Amino acid sequence: MKKINTQPPSGTRDFLPADVKVRERVFGVIKEVFESFGFLPMDTPALERIETLMGKYGEEAQKLIFKILKRGDKAASGEADLALRYDLTVPLARFFIQYQNQLPRPFRRYQIGPVWRADRPGKGRFREFYQCDVDIIGSPSLLADTEVILAITKSLSRLGLSDYVVRLNSRKVLRGLLEIYGIPSELRQATLTALDKLDKIGVEGVIQELKKLKLPEAIINEVKADLLKRGTELKSRISKSLSGKEGLKEVDELVSLVAPLLSKGEVEFSPFLVRGLDYYTGPIFEIYLKGVTGAIASGGRYDNLLEIFAGKQIPACGGSLGIDRLLSQIKQLGDQTMENTIAPQVFLTVWDGALRIEILRIANELRNEGISTEVSLSEGKISDQVRYASKRGARYCLFYGPDEQMRKEITIKNLSTGEQKSVKREQLAQTIKSFIQRR
Amino acid sequence: MKKINTQPPSGTRDFLPADVKVRERVFGVIKEVFESFGFLPMDTPALERIETLMGKYGEEAQKLIFKILKRGDKAASGEADLALRYDLTVPLARFFIQYQNQLPRPFRRYQIGPVWRADRPGKGRFREFYQCDVDIIGSPSLLADTEVILAITKSLSRLGLSDYVVRLNSRKVLRGLLEIYGIPSELRQATLTALDKLDKIGVEGVIQELKKLKLPEAIINEVKADLLKRGTELKSRISKSLSGKEGLKEVDELVSLVAPLLSKGEVEFSPFLVRGLDYYTGPIFEIYLKGVTGAIASGGRYDNLLEIFAGKQIPACGGSLGIDRLLSQIKQLGDQTMENTIAPQVFLTVWDGALRIEILRIANELRNEGISTEVSLSEGKISDQVRYASKRGARYCLFYGPDEQMRKEITIKNLSTGEQKSVKREQLAQTIKSFIQRR
Repeated sequence: MKKINTQPPSGTRDFLPADVKVRERVFGVIKEVFESFGFLPMDTPALERIETLMGKYGEEAQKLIFKILKRGDKAASGEADLALRYDLTVPLARFFIQYQNQLPRPFRRYQIGPVWRADRPGKGRFREFYQCDVDIIGSPSLLADTEVILAITKSLSRLGLSDYVVRLNSRKVLRGLLEIYGIPSELRQATLTALDKLDKIGVEGVIQELKKLKLPEAIINEVKADLLKRGTELKSRISKSLSGKEGLKEVDELVSLVAPLLSKGEVEFSPFLVRGLDYYTGPIFEIYLKGVTGAIASGGRYDNLLEIFAGKQIPACGGSLGIDRLLSQIKQLGDQTMENTIAPQVFLTVWDGALRIEILRIANELRNEGISTEVSLSEGKISDQVRYASKRGARYCLFYGPDEQMRKEITIKNLSTGEQKSVKREQLAQTIKSFIQRR
Repeated sequence: MKKINTQPPSGTRDFLPADVKVRERVFGVIKEVFESFGFLPMDTPALERIETLMGKYGEEAQKLIFKILKRGDKAASGEADLALRYDLTVPLARFFIQYQNQLPRPFRRYQIGPVWRADRPGKGRFREFYQCDVDIIGSPSLLADTEVILAITKSLSRLGLSDYVVRLNSRKVLRGLLEIYGIPSELRQATLTALDKLDKIGVEGVIQELKKLKLPEAIINEVKADLLKRGTELKSRISKSLSGKEGLKEVDELVSLVAPLLSKGEVEFSPFLVRGLDYYTGPIFEIYLKGVTGAIASGGRYDNLLEIFAGKQIPACGGSLGIDRLLSQIKQLGDQTMENTIAPQVFLTVWDGALRIEILRIANELRNEGISTEVSLSEGKISDQVRYASKRGARYCLFYGPDEQMRKEITIKNLSTGEQKSVKREQLAQTIKSFIQRR
């Protein structure tokens, strides 16, 4: 027989029970924090019309959109009319315009869900991955940018990851820098694309990329010298351009608002931070965990994106938490609280076929009391059933046979100590509960 | 400017904050019930390789699979290599075979997530919709089928929907009936397809479909007469075929196990229940809410599906709860507990730009105490800010201006009574908490 491939498609993942449990707990913490900030949950479909997504992210990014073939007779055309969402931001823009009369303004929202990018799969890089976004639509105030960053950093702290650095910049600072260097306007986008790779390929790598653009040697040397400096050292230089000055003002104000509220993390000005996507217009940020490669969160202001859908400008900003890096960090912390939460508390053996209904009744009583209970599905040897219960990590194994039925009792075996004891049927749930609490 | 379509794609939906809240609450109840039965959460990607899905559901169903175009240079070929999952069952079969050494056996799992079907969209019929599945892999016992049905009915009861009917049948009963009617083997699949539409098109509709198949008049009349009878009346007839007899035995045993455990719902034998998908082999079921058209849950045994991936038979059964019907029922119940859960408890006005950091600190303190707090993002007129707070449904509006700063106080306004009161800054969180509890 031909061997059938049972792995998930390249770049996607299956989640085992313990993985789902950790993920759910993390989502729970994040939701709680976001809601404490007044962010409201909302959701959009995985599918969007292709034209909703096109022209929003930039050429390189756009190539990575998964497209869906037309159905029925039109499938043969090879054409696509739908696509899988590439992020949670563009769908939000569409959503906000569609429902703006039913939504508060400013609208604070959060959304947790998968997005799809046909990136080359690699270590920690997936084609289907969860994003967890907060956004504020309809406010031009830097308080909005501040609340977005604070909601994200607070989530990190709550998850035990308080050793982070917030790197801040503004698209206006970048525009200023490009002006100051005198980079020709037709090469500005390509220069930003090169600078965007700084974290991945380092200063030398960026310089190589800039050389490919055939920028004058003098400019390249200037950029290189600046790349090696700290953000603060560049401030006076940046403020020589009008756009740079405006950007610096934003960044300084944002730092002054965010920094005092961080319990432990740090904020720094990072003038070469680009953030790949086309739609950013003002302040942008990335958050790094110390000792971890790649940003764990990022975002920025995108004051022009909604205009595409609305016909008029609506200010907006937001940020996104990368759930995969988060989960792998949390796994490394070796979370003790997750231990054995996938095991049932009680395993009910099935001793005698005739008693099955009674056994289901007992299970029902325990479940009603919030005690997770597995009923044996094998009616075979009791020793095999007990072995299965131990393997599943159950705390207690119950026996209910003809003897127990006569005495209106149930036998409880503690699977870690081996102790055994009989209790009256009507005291079972209470007894198990007291055992569990005592542990 | 061209009007841009901001609706979600046909057959898909956006979810407003209150909708997400209801959905989350429903998922929470379902998860709790499923886990109390020892079902473990797991997850698979939305994307599957096309060949994983093909040949599992039957020809009609297969046409409804959304296919994904190859990427990059291969996109021009118009070929698809991936697809969106059509249900949660076939991906489970792949998953189980891939990870069986890390999973308990029998493996009880649950999964909640969207599936995609390119059905014609209609009232209550979507192309992207949530399913909520429980399955047990590796047990041939009818106790497994029983636990699946009980987990689902218990979820319904917990959600306040205890007025349901469980309709049971077995694929073996159907095979028996077709034998007894003497339906030629080449027309059996088509006959089942016609019978499967019974709920949608009624007895007369099914008879019309059977006439199209050119079945002999005598057979059609026989089927029609039986369609009008109660299941129990057909038992002696069904047991004349070997397969029918076997099926009846399964159904009777399942009824005897399930019925005593239902707090309020009913179980009935439904010999013409088909369940569309190809993979079912034994007992099948549908659960209806009284007064609601269409099944709210369904499932059955599929002992041969895993063989396709494993090369050997592995028994399995499961069921699926239709979240959309569930949500619309729960909405009709007019759930009071959802009221205003999307409003923040506190709204913090921003009075004086210079005090913004202090105001963010106050917000932080309240949020740390679990009080959901929105900070005003407009620094405009206070009266406008208060109006926004009322519109958002906030309970309390806080003021912190230079006077308050001097007195180390904060002014609290109860937005429903209009009452106003000042408290010491350090007593704020406690005061708000006591207000909220008192209500």
